Formats: sequence, C-alpha cells, structure tokens
Amino acid sequence: MSTVTAPSEISKSRFSLSRLLIGKPLETRALPHQVVSNPIGLAVFASDALSSTAYSIEEILIILALAGTGAVTLALSIPITLAIVTLLIILTISYRQTIHAYPNGGGAYIVARDNLGELPAQIAGAALLTDYILTVAVSISSGVAQITSGFNALYPYRVGIAVGVIAFMTIVNLRGVRESGRIFAAPTYFFIFTILFMLIVGLVRSALGNLGTVKDVHELVRHDVQSLTLFLVLRAFSSGCTALTGVEAISNGITAFKEPKSKNAATTLTYMSAIMIVLMIGLTLLTHQVSALPSERETIFSQVGRTVFGASSVFYFALLSATALILLMAANTSYADFPRLAALHAGDGFLPRQLTYRGSRLVFSWGIMGLATCASLLVLVSRASVTALIPLYAIGVFLSFTMSQTGMVVRMRKVGKLHPGEEVPGRETVMRYDPHWRLKMFISALGAVCTGMVMVIFAVTKFTNGAWFVVVLIPTLVFIFFRIHYHYRDVARLLSLKGVPVDVEKRPIQTLILVDDVHAETVRLVNFAKSLDHPWHAVHIAVNPDKVELIREKWRKRIGEGDLVIIPSPYRLLAEPLRQYIEELQAQTPGSFVHVILGHLAMDTFWEQALHQNTAVLFNLALSRMERVVVTSVPYQIHRNGLAHEPSEAIVPLGH
Amino acid sequence: MSTVTAPSEISKSRFSLSRLLIGKPLETRALPHQVVSNPIGLAVFASDALSSTAYSIEEILIILALAGTGAVTLALSIPITLAIVTLLIILTISYRQTIHAYPNGGGAYIVARDNLGELPAQIAGAALLTDYILTVAVSISSGVAQITSGFNALYPYRVGIAVGVIAFMTIVNLRGVRESGRIFAAPTYFFIFTILFMLIVGLVRSALGNLGTVKDVHELVRHDVQSLTLFLVLRAFSSGCTALTGVEAISNGITAFKEPKSKNAATTLTYMSAIMIVLMIGLTLLTHQVSALPSERETIFSQVGRTVFGASSVFYFALLSATALILLMAANTSYADFPRLAALHAGDGFLPRQLTYRGSRLVFSWGIMGLATCASLLVLVSRASVTALIPLYAIGVFLSFTMSQTGMVVRMRKVGKLHPGEEVPGRETVMRYDPHWRLKMFISALGAVCTGMVMVIFAVTKFTNGAWFVVVLIPTLVFIFFRIHYHYRDVARLLSLKGVPVDVEKRPIQTLILVDDVHAETVRLVNFAKSLDHPWHAVHIAVNPDKVELIREKWRKRIGEGDLVIIPSPYRLLAEPLRQYIEELQAQTPGSFVHVILGHLAMDTFWEQALHQNTAVLFNLALSRMERVVVTSVPYQIHRNGLAHEPSEAIVPLGH
Repeated sequence: MSTVTAPSEISKSRFSLSRLLIGKPLETRALPHQVVSNPIGLAVFASDALSSTAYSIEEILIILALAGTGAVTLALSIPITLAIVTLLIILTISYRQTIHAYPNGGGAYIVARDNLGELPAQIAGAALLTDYILTVAVSISSGVAQITSGFNALYPYRVGIAVGVIAFMTIVNLRGVRESGRIFAAPTYFFIFTILFMLIVGLVRSALGNLGTVKDVHELVRHDVQSLTLFLVLRAFSSGCTALTGVEAISNGITAFKEPKSKNAATTLTYMSAIMIVLMIGLTLLTHQVSALPSERETIFSQVGRTVFGASSVFYFALLSATALILLMAANTSYADFPRLAALHAGDGFLPRQLTYRGSRLVFSWGIMGLATCASLLVLVSRASVTALIPLYAIGVFLSFTMSQTGMVVRMRKVGKLHPGEEVPGRETVMRYDPHWRLKMFISALGAVCTGMVMVIFAVTKFTNGAWFVVVLIPTLVFIFFRIHYHYRDVARLLSLKGVPVDVEKRPIQTLILVDDVHAETVRLVNFAKSLDHPWHAVHIAVNPDKVELIREKWRKRIGEGDLVIIPSPYRLLAEPLRQYIEELQAQTPGSFVHVILGHLAMDTFWEQALHQNTAVLFNLALSRMERVVVTSVPYQIHRNGLAHEPSEAIVPLGH
Repeated sequence: MSTVTAPSEISKSRFSLSRLLIGKPLETRALPHQVVSNPIGLAVFASDALSSTAYSIEEILIILALAGTGAVTLALSIPITLAIVTLLIILTISYRQTIHAYPNGGGAYIVARDNLGELPAQIAGAALLTDYILTVAVSISSGVAQITSGFNALYPYRVGIAVGVIAFMTIVNLRGVRESGRIFAAPTYFFIFTILFMLIVGLVRSALGNLGTVKDVHELVRHDVQSLTLFLVLRAFSSGCTALTGVEAISNGITAFKEPKSKNAATTLTYMSAIMIVLMIGLTLLTHQVSALPSERETIFSQVGRTVFGASSVFYFALLSATALILLMAANTSYADFPRLAALHAGDGFLPRQLTYRGSRLVFSWGIMGLATCASLLVLVSRASVTALIPLYAIGVFLSFTMSQTGMVVRMRKVGKLHPGEEVPGRETVMRYDPHWRLKMFISALGAVCTGMVMVIFAVTKFTNGAWFVVVLIPTLVFIFFRIHYHYRDVARLLSLKGVPVDVEKRPIQTLILVDDVHAETVRLVNFAKSLDHPWHAVHIAVNPDKVELIREKWRKRIGEGDLVIIPSPYRLLAEPLRQYIEELQAQTPGSFVHVILGHLAMDTFWEQALHQNTAVLFNLALSRMERVVVTSVPYQIHRNGLAHEPSEAIVPLGH
C-alpha cells in the first residue's frame, strides 16, 4: 500500500467565475482554531440578541395599537418589557449552567441528544434550523426597513434590496468568514454606544422638559379597534419575546473562548444580558416618552432617533446605520450557525450527507446555499415585512430553549445520584457530582417551564397569523429527518459485509459494443473491447430501419471482425430493447457480468456538447437498475479549434 | 451478423404521467400516408390565412386612428384593403406556379435551396421559423381577445389563459394530431359561414337603413393625434398585410392532396384566395358602415357582430366562438409546420440533430417543445397583446415569399434555356421545358418585387415599434445555423475513416478501482476487476485525511488482496488529483488504456438517489477530456422496501 505525493498545485484554468466570486481553494489543514478574548466574544455572539431590540419594542406596540393608541394602552409596553427582562434573567442563569456543563459546546441539539435521546434532539434541531432561517429573513428585512426609514425613496425597492443583501452575504460566507475576526467587534460596539448615547441624550432632554414628541409620522398602521383583552396583552408579550432570540448563541460557541472557556463564556453571557436589559428598559421608556407610534414606512427607532437628535442630525443617521449594520451582523451569525447545525444533523444521518462536505473554502457550502434559498423565499413571500414574519419567528427558539433546559433537568437528576467525587464519562462531556444539583435542577426546570409557556402562548396567540405554519413545519421536518435516517441506516445495513463472505471467484464477462454508426469512434470502441480479451460482439439498436443495411455494410468493410447484432426498435426507444436483449444474455449465462461499452464524443464546449446525443448518461441511468450490468463509456475527444489539447491524436485518431 | 426478434411489447410500468398525457407509443411503420379531398384540404390549410382577417382590419384601424378618428381618415381602410387584395391575387397566381413546379412540396426553404443555394435557403428558413412562432403567439392572443370581448370578466386573466391554451395545444400535438382529420373541417367552415352570414345580414340591414353604429364602446385606444402622412398610411398597409400570412401553407402541403396533387392543390389555393377576398372586402365595408373603432377591451369583430346581431343574440356568440376557434386552428398549423421545417434544417445539419428524432408518438417532440417555449415567452412579454406583437409579425413571411419567388425566377430562366421536350432531373423535382416560361418568370418576379417591397415597408415603418428585433434576429439565426453546420461538418471529418487504418493491435489496460469506503459495493467492484483479468489496483482519494487509516485497515481485513493507493487531496477535490495520478500512469505506459472502475449506488426513487453523492456522473464528466481514459460504472442496487425487484441478491449481495 502506497501513498502518492500531493499535487503541487491545482489547475488554474477552470471555474474562473466561481473562483472570482468565492476565492482560491483552501487546504483542509487551514481550518481555523483561533480563540477570542471576552470583549471580542461579546461582539461576535451578541449581535443576534442585541439587534432584536430593533424590532421587539416595535412589534409590542403594533399589537397594543390594535386596541387603540391611547396613552394608557401603550403604557402597557412597560410592564410587558419588565416581564421579558425577568424571563431573560432566568434564562441567563440557566444557560450559565449549561455552559459549565458542556465546555465543548452546549447547543440545544447536543444537550437534548445527550440527555433526552434522538427524537427530542431532532425536534430541538428542526426548531433551531427553522429559526436560523427566520433570523436571516427578519434581521435583513428589519435592517432594510431602517435604511428605507431614512431614505424613503428606497421604500418601493425594499424586497429587491433585501434579496440583494442576502445574495451578497451568501457570497461573502461562501468565501469563508473568520468568525472571530475583529471586524465583528466594530458594529456591535458602535450599536451599543449609539443607543446608550441616544438614551442619555433623550433622558436628559426629557428631564429638562424640551424633548417633545414625534412629529410628522408618515402613516400609522390602521386596523379596526379591538378591545384590550388578556389575549391581546399576551400576544404583545410574545411578540416582544423575539428580543430573546440569540441568547443561546454563546452556549453554541464556547470553544471560541480562551481558557478557562466555560468561565469566560459564562461571564460574557452575563455581560451581554446586562447590556440587553439596559437597552430594553431604556428604549421602552424613551419610546413611551416621545409617544412613538408604529408606522409601515418608518421604524420606531427612526422616530425616536429623529425626535431625540433631530431629523438632519448626524447622530440620527449614525443610529440608523448602526442599527442596520448590527441587524446584518445578526443575520450573518445564522450563516455560521445554520450550516454547522445542519452538518451535525447530517453527520448523525438525519440530513443529506452532502451537508457535511466542506467546499473549496472550507465552509459548508450546501448549508449556506440552503439557508440563503429559504431565507430569500421568505423575504419574497412576506414582501420583506417584519410584521408579517414575526408570528413565525421565535417559536423555534423557545422550543429549543425548552428542550435544552429539560435536558439539563434530566442531567442534574443523574448528577444528584452520583457519589461525591464520582465522575462518569459521557458522549459529550464528563459528568461530575455537584452538591448544588437540586438548586441547579430547579433553575433549569424553572427556565424550561417559563420558555415552554411562552412557546405555547406564542403558538396560540399567533396561530392564525402564521404560527400555524411553524406548528405544522417542525413535526414535518422531524418526520423527514427520521425518514432520511432510516434510509441511511438501511443502506448501511445492505452494504455491510458482516457475515458475508468476499466473492473471490472470477465470473464470466460478456462484452457488448453499442454501435450507432461506424466511424473513428467505433474503431476505438472495438480496440478497447479487443484489448479486454473477453468474448465480445457489437449491437446496433435499429431506431431507424432504413439505416440498418448501410451500417451492416460499413461494419463489414471497415471493421471486418466480430458479430454485429441488430436489435429492432419499432417504438424508436434506445434503452428498452437493449434491456430486454441483456436479460436474454443473462438468462443464458447466469451469474455473469454483462459489460456494455459505448462511446462518448467529448466536445470542448457546452454548446458543442449540446448538439450531440450524449447517450452515455442515458444508458448509465437506464441500465443502473440491472444487476451486474456494467456500463463503460469510452470518450473520444473532438477538438475543432486549433487542436490545441492533444495534437498527436485529434485529427488522426488511430494507428499512429 | 444476426437480427434478434422484436420485443413483444414495451414495458408498461414506467413514465406513467407522461404516458397519461402523451399516450401510448406508436410504431414507426404507423407514420400516416393519408391524402385528403379538396374541401378538407381547404379546411386544413386555410385556417391560418382566413383567421388573419380577425386582426388585420383591426390593426389597420389602430394605425389610422393615430391620425384621429374622423370618418375620412378611417375610410382609408377601404383603398388599403383593395391594395392588399391586389397583392393577394399576384401571390396566388405566383404560388400556383410553384405548386406545379414542386409537386412533392414547395415550401420556401426547399425552393430556395433548390435554386438559390444554402445561404438563401437558410435565410428563408430562419424567417419562416420566426414567423411560425409569431403565428402561435398572435393567433392565440387574438383568440383570447375574442373570448374576453364576450366575457369581459376574463380580461385580467388573458395572459394566463393564453399560456394555458399553448400548454394544452402542446400536449395535444405531442400526442400527435392527424393533420388530415375531419375535425379541422368543422371550425374552418363554421367560421366562413358565420362571417358570410354576418356580411349578408349586415348589408341587408344597412340597405334597409336600420343597421346603426356601434354603441357603448368600452374605452378607445387613445394616443396623441398625429398628422396623416404617407408613412402612416404605409404603416397601416403593412399592418393589414398580416392577413396574407398563411397563403403559403398549401404549397408546403401538396403531398397531402389526392392525385393529381399539383392540380388539386392549385385549385384549392384559388378557392382559398377567393374566399379571403370576399371576407376582407366585405368586412372592411361593414366595419366602416357601423363606425367600429379600435378598443383595448373589445375586438372590432365583436363590435361589428353585436351591432349586426345584437349583443345578446346567439349569432353574436357564435361569431366570437367561430373566430376564437379558427384562430386556435391557425396556431395549430404552426405546430405542424415548425417542427417539420426545423427537422428539414436539422437533417441538413443546420440545427441540432435532435430535432429530427420522432418521439414515442411519431411527432418531432423537440420541435414542438421549442415552438411552445418561444411562443409562451412572446405571450408573456407582450402581455398577450396582438397590437404589441404585430410589428414583429409577417416580416419573416414576406421575406420567405420573396426568397421563394426569386428562386422561381431563377428556375424559370433555366427552364427557358432547355430545348422543347428536354427534361433535367434535379434534387427535388424534374425540370421540363415550358413554352410559357417568360410569362411565368415575369409573374414570379412581379410577386418577388411586390412582397420584397412590402417587407421593406414593414421593416421601415415598424422598425422602432419592434420590427428591429426581427431585423436583428433573422441574420443572427442564420449565423447560428451556419455555426452549427460547420460544427457537424468538422466532427464528421474528424470521425471519418477515410485513409485511416483500423487500429488492430491490442493495447495494455491498467485497471483502477475507485474506493471511497470498503463495503459490499466495493466487493463487487473488486470482483469485476478480477474477472477482467488485467493488472489492477485500488485508489482512494483522501478528501478526509482522518479516514485514511481506517480504510487501509478495512481494505486489509475485508479484501486482503490488491494494492490500495492513497492519493492525497488537500483541497478536498475528487477529480483533479485523480486526473494527475492517471497522467502519471499514462506517462509510464504510453498508448495504454487506463480503465477506471467506480461504483454507483442505484436507488429505487429520485429522492433516495438525491441523498447520495452520485460521483459516477461527476467522474464521467471530469475524465471525458482525457485521451484513452475509460470509465466503467458498476451499479449496485439498493432496494429498501420489500426487496421486490431482485429478491435473490438485494440483502446478501455476494457469494450466493
């Protein structure tokens, strides 16, 4: 057994367009193993969570406004925000535990698989995959809405812009983004400081009494006024809970932190939650102060911003661009998470294997393309409207929160049964006794119950607005995942060699040459068949009965050896008569191989190729269902222009 | 050399959807050889020409109305119609000559090829193919406009209806229509008699003085009023000349008539022209009488019809349905003519060979699909508006008229040089001396000059309205046709065996087995390679370096013979490293065959197949550019469900 040397470099001549867009191929050993400091980690992983504040407050107000735009009604946004903040605190404490338990990465899929089994893991995974797609669609739609708030002339082109942004982001990600790059730090901190600055200016001006309220709102979202029911308040609450999407990001990316990884990740999570709480409460108060009202053409952020800073202030445009930028960053995190999670599923055999292949730039190209396609479709269908997408969003995330924390409850019960000091190695991580297991189990259980309740509230209050789609989709996905899994399992079983003796005896081979006409290509086929040194004969399928005599004559004159069998084909079919002929041959010599040799004219360009029949592909397909029928395609190269490639053979193909 | 018996019947299990739509396959010997009587022939071939009256008068009025809707202006439609009628008479006499000269079919392509050479023939053919596409688009758009005139509620759905009709017509034609079927007779005669009845009723009521004018026209087509120039009159004339499209149909279809074919065809042509003249003059007068004005939502036919018969009369709806029906019939003639002409081009090597293949129902399926695709695109782009399509239409037909008649002039000059009684056999037909050759040459020349002038008027007056597209398209098509022709000619030259000795010596074969993993499929590959009895070794492309040791180990344990070569692939490419390895092998043993054997897991369904890599196709493509590298794909069948197909082998695939 030998190993040949690595190719010195790969050919430069081909795939020039894709190479231009995607970049030069990268070697496998170039897979990055970098780690980041806590401030950079915060910037990288917080964009998703922080950016949701750009639409969550708005979506709360849109629901409340259904019951009229009175001051008392809209003031309900404040207690709703406080409820969401409480939920965030519970989640943060609960997820710190997960981070410590799974230092190698504690995403919902892994935690559920480790503690609950395959079905819950697939449910959590399907939910997360769905939500990653929605994150892209919602974040980019919201980002574009920020831009069109500032530049109203762009409003009619919002769908095109959003799809264009997705396409751009897809190309960037197919090139491969160094997730840990410092480039991510800038927009996140730019956003945090811009918002904090706006909060301070706004609250100071409010205290001085010269803040005022929003002027010249374009057009309000108008509905028939409903009465203010508990149902409506819960619906507003669940809309606001979209702010919590992205909180799980750090638990997926623990390995990106410096040692001690778990501790650093947990600390960063705490910082992130603290910042979120400040932003959410501050923004809710300020929004209420300036009496911003939801409008289809201008975001709440834009209204608050121009009231605080003035519509022509540079800070107002800084706010809009910071918001648009962090929303794009948030979408970009899905471009990292979705393909990675899909590859995990595929590695376990629940999604097509192709999702585990790294492309020329080491990224999971299939996953990136799949994400981009689904997100673009959502943007097109929803006409890039955040409000239309929100009812579909966040159910998946809350389902995965619930699964993950339920998994932690199960794990803590097991931990509680260990003796002090005992360690049990698991699939993902080592399980150690923990004296505080009861408290930790309680926190995880509390988190699971809360997020589970929110998910139910979500599904019920928004069912008719679109949530039904997700309620149907996730079980469907899980069903498909298992179908795929059973397929791979069965194929593996059918291919397994366990207990099967290796087939050592040689078998007879009957060789057929498929002849359409007799010319230089045919000579090569005959030459190959003769070189093989097995019994052979030629076969012509008589699609055109008028040609038969001519071909017989040519065969006799030009080849002059070997039998030429004519198979009639009254229905002008190619594969069907051949199949019947082969079946007869196989019946005559059971257990033999039938070896079909056919020619393939290989042209230099696609257009030239399209002018020929290309029957090789057809026969390969048609005969692939027959046991022990082997198809050989013998290419014959045609170089019309300059004969540049194989000068010695192209014109005088034989007998040199 | 032997011939096996014909398959008793072809498999019934596959392609069930297409079989449902298209019907059972037909045997080649079932090609129809029927002939028709003159009245049926008139009905079959006249639908295109007669149906054009449904839009030609309308298009004349639309142009004239650009100069205002005064009575004097619109009365110009009468002299314009008379000019068109004169042209029709010249054309009829001229085409009678062509019919007599080419009893086996005298389409413009054949006449031009026979007398003028390849380039003019290709120009005539390209022009006709373009116009056949336009005939479908214009006729169906006009037919749908008749329907929406009667049922205004359908107006917004006209594009969808038109595309649906094209799809339906495509399916019908893929099933194969017996052109000569009596079914064609009914709509043509229904149309002729309905129009004649309307003319009589209209003229009688007009004579009695109780006809009146059109009431309640929906909305006129409004433009800025232009002044009435000669240019505008010529533009109106050229729009009206679209009525003459289809006059050539009988000359294409002479073989469908009874003996004496030429005489019967010529008589039918005369009858057809006479009917057209009556309809055109009658309709123009009646339209003028009732002061019908072009409207976007109601055709002129509909306006005249409801004025003559009354809007709720059964005759009014009979008129609309007769008109819609004959327009569909007219479109259908293109479904016969386009594929037949395309097959002629393809047979001469100017279009892809595939266009000459008859599908399972004996029709030229590729031509039908091509026509349907182009016509649908035109309907979509023009939003099914006849007025938008008219500027593109008829240039091609008039160009082909000109080429055909110029060809006849050349022919008559040759005829004039023969001695009385002399006969010269030509490619298409025998040339005989004719004492009237001077007169006939004059008539053909007159026709050629007239139609040529009309074509120029057409191109100039409508250039900016869309005719430029056709002016650019036809030379482009001719260029492409010749590129295709040169390609086939070169390939034939490269494949020709003239002067090339047959390669008789056997060559060494080096066999490679491509191994991705070691399982039951691999065993079959090894078994086949061993059965071939040539030197062989296995090759593994190390896309995933971590798997290499495991595969070496498996190979040693499970196969235990043959060399396994590991080819590194640091860029995770499959084909490129293999190509380099093969090049090295070929350099070591020049002139040898390299025989690559790879496995192909054949699944029962498309979806299962999509879950696997299907590298066989990839390698076939990637290696097809290498001289004497032969790829064999060894299928291995996976039947998961019930193992119904090959029970003996599916589960225990080896060593039985």
